[in-house]
Amino acid sequence: MSARYVLILAGGRGERFWPWSQPARPKQLLPLASGGRTLLRATFDRATRLVPADRILIMTSLDLRDACARECPGACVLGEPSMRNTAHAIAAALAWVGETDAIAVMPADHAIEDEAAFAADLELAFARAERERVLMTFGIRPASPETNFGYIERGTSLSERIARVARFTEKPDLATANAWVANGTHVWNSGIFVWRRDVFFDALEAGRPAIAAALRKFSFTPRTPGAFSSALRDVFEPLESISVDYAVLERAPNTLVIDASFDWDDLGSWSAWARRQRHDASGNVLYGDAIAIDCERCVVVGDGGTAAALGLRDMVVVHANGATLACRLEDSDRVRSISAAARERSAG
Amino acid sequence: MSARYVLILAGGRGERFWPWSQPARPKQLLPLASGGRTLLRATFDRATRLVPADRILIMTSLDLRDACARECPGACVLGEPSMRNTAHAIAAALAWVGETDAIAVMPADHAIEDEAAFAADLELAFARAERERVLMTFGIRPASPETNFGYIERGTSLSERIARVARFTEKPDLATANAWVANGTHVWNSGIFVWRRDVFFDALEAGRPAIAAALRKFSFTPRTPGAFSSALRDVFEPLESISVDYAVLERAPNTLVIDASFDWDDLGSWSAWARRQRHDASGNVLYGDAIAIDCERCVVVGDGGTAAALGLRDMVVVHANGATLACRLEDSDRVRSISAAARERSAG
Repeated sequence: MSARYVLILAGGRGERFWPWSQPARPKQLLPLASGGRTLLRATFDRATRLVPADRILIMTSLDLRDACARECPGACVLGEPSMRNTAHAIAAALAWVGETDAIAVMPADHAIEDEAAFAADLELAFARAERERVLMTFGIRPASPETNFGYIERGTSLSERIARVARFTEKPDLATANAWVANGTHVWNSGIFVWRRDVFFDALEAGRPAIAAALRKFSFTPRTPGAFSSALRDVFEPLESISVDYAVLERAPNTLVIDASFDWDDLGSWSAWARRQRHDASGNVLYGDAIAIDCERCVVVGDGGTAAALGLRDMVVVHANGATLACRLEDSDRVRSISAAARERSAG
Repeated sequence: MSARYVLILAGGRGERFWPWSQPARPKQLLPLASGGRTLLRATFDRATRLVPADRILIMTSLDLRDACARECPGACVLGEPSMRNTAHAIAAALAWVGETDAIAVMPADHAIEDEAAFAADLELAFARAERERVLMTFGIRPASPETNFGYIERGTSLSERIARVARFTEKPDLATANAWVANGTHVWNSGIFVWRRDVFFDALEAGRPAIAAALRKFSFTPRTPGAFSSALRDVFEPLESISVDYAVLERAPNTLVIDASFDWDDLGSWSAWARRQRHDASGNVLYGDAIAIDCERCVVVGDGGTAAALGLRDMVVVHANGATLACRLEDSDRVRSISAAARERSAG
């Protein structure tokens, strides 16, 4: 009798929310989800609609294990001794899973509000993945021509909502993205996948045999998260860093895409987050200890201190973790350049 | 033999520099002067060119006495038990001064760089005030049609640089200020005055006899700053609040104005301060822990934490005292509205 699992990938740094996000509290641990929940907690809550908590695996960096465990009571929180990439994280976590068990893989730091639709869609994917040797992915109908997203080109339709995958493409230019959105051939890659362990390793073996060989036979005793991390150190050491998209999905002939019926946002920037928040009469999003006087369409966040904006339009003003950020909303996807500069400064 | 004194008025709140300025560290205690000095320290340094430190009196609020004393070693630091206004502060401080001694009165929070010219001008005023029954004021040739300043209209010329005062006027409208700057009839009121004790009290008696009567005979034992403050409490209690401009200068027939030969700036806002600072190649003023990426003509101040600005033009971004301010440079004289809102919030 095979079982279902959920793997939540919670290793991201999330520097686009600097200074709110910090190495010790990256994006997935910020209260960016509905109800004041962290994104990780909201992802965990969605996962508990699919499987019991003790079959929810969370893969994160060693230093974030405790913080993740507090957010997700009852889950199995695994620490990667060194960050490789999604292919390794997924393959390593499968050590906890039986040969023909099915697993849903999902990022910890995306926003999805319609939990019922999500659960129904995942049920559909689980059923198919348990029955056939396929790799299930979820495509999001594009709301805009994003150039920072990965896209999936739909191939032959197998049913109303499921198609073969023709091609994966990362970060198109704007003209290309516009064309894709206009003609409906492409969907956003949600980063949510479902497959059986055996099917995944066969596909990984075809793409990256060294990684597949190292992790297919990965075992350790005692069977605890602590022993897992220690044993993984030696296994990861010689392996190249590669994403599951490159190592598996782009080359596998048996990848299918489901048109997601749930809402989805990767919350890749302050402006993406703000779009989903409640706005005041002037279109401002105020969070925490925030003051906005004569402002329109501004995001003002004060966490641990007052953030005050005066007479501004279309700006982001953040006070958090003893630092301040001010930029235009349209520049909020460039915040990473600031967090890099701030990190260099504190290191130097 | 009569002596010379200097009285530095250091009771201001200076809320225009929020969040850098705070009740416990108002504008005069911020390092806004050249050489990283506080404005109070720079004022004290200028005063020591005129008189020995023990004849420099500093009038401030009770809670700032210690901070002021640290900045001004050897000075006599007096605390007002309750803030009234400049007329009372000056009259009370004169308890330390002999009947015919002369005193120079100056605000603690203005910027003056040319200390030699300042000393020469003050010598001129002292000499005249010791010789004649006059109230000496200093007028600054207007560099721009400021509407937040007080102006002095020059009357009959008595010499190349000294004239009778025809009229004091506060905060003209822009058209009026423009006309005054164009025709050269008016100068800015620097808030710096020189007079003898007896001449001042006679003028105050004509304008506000109750205040003059109460403070002319003000005495206390022991003759210490502590006893001064305690005794002053009862004296101040019944008195109305009024500025020296209204109570004395505007109505006295013996007020003269000297054309100042020193530079002067009241540093009334972030933009006024920034004008006097060193700018980088993009016209930005960076102070402390400040990061500016792709910014032009911005003021970025980080005190006790990083202030980061990205892609901005003509903005003020400040991180200080656990709070953040962001506004346009041209709005920096409206910062008081923010500090008021922040104060209300922390009180509520």
